Amino acid sequence: MNEDGTLIQSNSRSELRQLVCSQLQLLLEQSNLEGAKALLVPVQPVDIAEAIESLPESMQVIAFRLLSKEEAIAVYEHLDSTVQQALIEKFKQQEVREIVDQMSPDDRVKLFDELPAKIVRRLLEQLSPEERQNTALLLGYEEDTAGRIMTPEYISLKETFTVNLTLERIRRLAITSEVVYYLYVTDASRHLAGIVSLRELVLSSPETTLDEIMTRDVVYVNTNDDQEEVAKIIQRYDLLAVPVVDKEQRLVGVVTVDDVIDILQDEATEDIYALGGVQSDGENYFQTSIVTVARKRVVWLLVLLLTNTVTGTIIKSQVHVLEKMAILTAFIPLLTGTGGNVGAQSSTVVIRGLNTDDMKDLTTKEVVIREMLAGVLLGLMLGTLATIWAYWLQGNWSVSLSVGISLVAIAILASVAGSALPFLFRSLGLDPALMSAPFITTAVDVVGVLIYFSIARTILGI
Amino acid sequence: MNEDGTLIQSNSRSELRQLVCSQLQLLLEQSNLEGAKALLVPVQPVDIAEAIESLPESMQVIAFRLLSKEEAIAVYEHLDSTVQQALIEKFKQQEVREIVDQMSPDDRVKLFDELPAKIVRRLLEQLSPEERQNTALLLGYEEDTAGRIMTPEYISLKETFTVNLTLERIRRLAITSEVVYYLYVTDASRHLAGIVSLRELVLSSPETTLDEIMTRDVVYVNTNDDQEEVAKIIQRYDLLAVPVVDKEQRLVGVVTVDDVIDILQDEATEDIYALGGVQSDGENYFQTSIVTVARKRVVWLLVLLLTNTVTGTIIKSQVHVLEKMAILTAFIPLLTGTGGNVGAQSSTVVIRGLNTDDMKDLTTKEVVIREMLAGVLLGLMLGTLATIWAYWLQGNWSVSLSVGISLVAIAILASVAGSALPFLFRSLGLDPALMSAPFITTAVDVVGVLIYFSIARTILGI
Repeated sequence: MNEDGTLIQSNSRSELRQLVCSQLQLLLEQSNLEGAKALLVPVQPVDIAEAIESLPESMQVIAFRLLSKEEAIAVYEHLDSTVQQALIEKFKQQEVREIVDQMSPDDRVKLFDELPAKIVRRLLEQLSPEERQNTALLLGYEEDTAGRIMTPEYISLKETFTVNLTLERIRRLAITSEVVYYLYVTDASRHLAGIVSLRELVLSSPETTLDEIMTRDVVYVNTNDDQEEVAKIIQRYDLLAVPVVDKEQRLVGVVTVDDVIDILQDEATEDIYALGGVQSDGENYFQTSIVTVARKRVVWLLVLLLTNTVTGTIIKSQVHVLEKMAILTAFIPLLTGTGGNVGAQSSTVVIRGLNTDDMKDLTTKEVVIREMLAGVLLGLMLGTLATIWAYWLQGNWSVSLSVGISLVAIAILASVAGSALPFLFRSLGLDPALMSAPFITTAVDVVGVLIYFSIARTILGI
Repeated sequence: MNEDGTLIQSNSRSELRQLVCSQLQLLLEQSNLEGAKALLVPVQPVDIAEAIESLPESMQVIAFRLLSKEEAIAVYEHLDSTVQQALIEKFKQQEVREIVDQMSPDDRVKLFDELPAKIVRRLLEQLSPEERQNTALLLGYEEDTAGRIMTPEYISLKETFTVNLTLERIRRLAITSEVVYYLYVTDASRHLAGIVSLRELVLSSPETTLDEIMTRDVVYVNTNDDQEEVAKIIQRYDLLAVPVVDKEQRLVGVVTVDDVIDILQDEATEDIYALGGVQSDGENYFQTSIVTVARKRVVWLLVLLLTNTVTGTIIKSQVHVLEKMAILTAFIPLLTGTGGNVGAQSSTVVIRGLNTDDMKDLTTKEVVIREMLAGVLLGLMLGTLATIWAYWLQGNWSVSLSVGISLVAIAILASVAGSALPFLFRSLGLDPALMSAPFITTAVDVVGVLIYFSIARTILGI
């Protein structure tokens, strides 16, 4: 971009990142530490973290020690937890203390969640009293709640403060505080009374007091609120951070928008995996062992195997029909396949709708009726085509009509089941995404085959 | 929370929102405008927008006119585009001008995209010259690019400015600027030279010049970068906003984190829909007509109908086998079902991996090999169970073995196809999500049936 080349451009950014990775390894192999240090100066912490992760384990500590103290902490926070652990074991006592003490409390808690309890105890002892208290506070809340992901390092002020006094206070506190764009005003018993943005502060005259400019209608969350709920609130109200209060309604922390983006991303991944019939538990699928991968997948497959045995048993009970009219078999995959696909479509849109705001204007009944009507429409279109194709394939109108009529019935049934079951699951207090597409697919198979044989036997008079 | 009840609590927030909706309608029906006005005072703009959307159309304008000018603009920006359009038609000339002129440029462009061209032309003429220029600039970029979603209302400064002078400037400009937490330093030809956060500014002494405190390693994007790319960069670097430069590398706008959250959400919805075999085009599925719904779904269903006819044709060609051994039919759903599910699992994790950072440490080959190994493991487990079950169902070891061996082969094939095809699609420049789970399911059906019949004929000697 400009002559000294310090600006990082988006187009070539991923290539640039790969270049940094390979250059870093090369320089370290040549023991050119000064060169490596110079290489990393204009690079963003998250990109340095990626470069360090790509190094052979023996070089990771060496690369890490090239960083300035401040940068080292930022980089460490961005490392994968496995690399964080490996480094902790190689660090000297002093390094451990400096880095872990300076990490932001929410990232530190994430690391502690992964480390063996013994190491966590040792690390806790080495923390400064204040950081130890912060960490213990966060560890006291359940996983995936607002309390666990918040940072207790916010700036809280009294409403009698003037703008000038406040700015002075910020200058003193901002170095240790992660969040400075919103300032929180609390009363004598630490109850949240209002909020002032740094923007408003800068725009106000120095002698104004905070109670004149603060917003009293504060959107906030409770420590035990689910992190997904917190993410939705930040998204809905376009916030940069949301304050967290405890049971006694005292301000205890703040959740920031950058954490929320990652949460929304992870929750979307979870939904997508559930729809694909893969269990997810927050671990990165691609960093787990093959055995874990098989474990995450086998549960659903076993359930589906079981359902398919039912379909098989039904077909077995109709073998006498098939022995008279073997050609009926040719249309089983068409019917079960289409039924499964129509059902999967309905359940996909409904499950996503339940997890976002998209469906807010409709009642359960309206949604199911909409899907049913769509099922009728789709069934009629596909049924007509299937009848024609079936006739062309085997030249018997009775068989063709059985196929066509069955397809219409199956499409309607699949739409209704696919849209209604997620609601049912939710009203039972279960995750609607459990009602995943593969489940619908297989459930519709069973009923679809039954419908097909009934209709065929009626029409063919077998 | 506190005595005057102004704070909005998260737990009861959705109930509170519903209460506002019903109360508002009640008060308007009683023509109690003062009461309605008072009701809305402590409510957030996005919640007021929801309440107005829930009103009968005739009341929407009345409710909207209760709002203060400033609040009206914020509420209007949060309304659904259909309600925005309906209101525009009912507004008086003067109201239109005030609201549309004051909207943030990115929200205004979103509205203009939906309105008929004639109305847009009329509205453009009524805008102030500055806003008209802003809007024309944004409308000049392609949809879904950084240029289209950015706001041109950022604060740009010279590097020779002192902190004091800068603060003064901000006080003058901040009222019209959406983004104040980052300030952009440009040179004489408007090239981006660095960035100063409001936080750094507040922390620095008044006489410091910007070139002493600004960060020169700026992460930025280009006007024609895809919005998803922009979202990923904001997420990766934990930014609150990212600057946008044009082809000549001049600063032209800023994309903010709140827009990015919505983009990530929409992209996840798109991926989920694609996996479920539903087309998406940015419209809300639940707000479209049944015919549109059918149209969004029928394309995939037709493709799958076609593939299923292939399976049907294969089975027809094997009718002589089935006539001798009709019981073989009983296991077709089990084999195609399991194959489809294993394939869907592999394609789901790979497609999601391609759209996030999760897979970054692995090459294509490593991913496919991992999936293949998982397929072997899953195939062996399920194959053993299926063999036992098949024997129990019909007591013929040859048939049972055919089923078991076919299942192992199909599981391996499905894993490889499910993981490799999304990569193939991407390398052809197509969206990997097109390689959706239903497609894999049906493709595996065809090959699965072929494998089953070949193995069965070999073992049974038919």
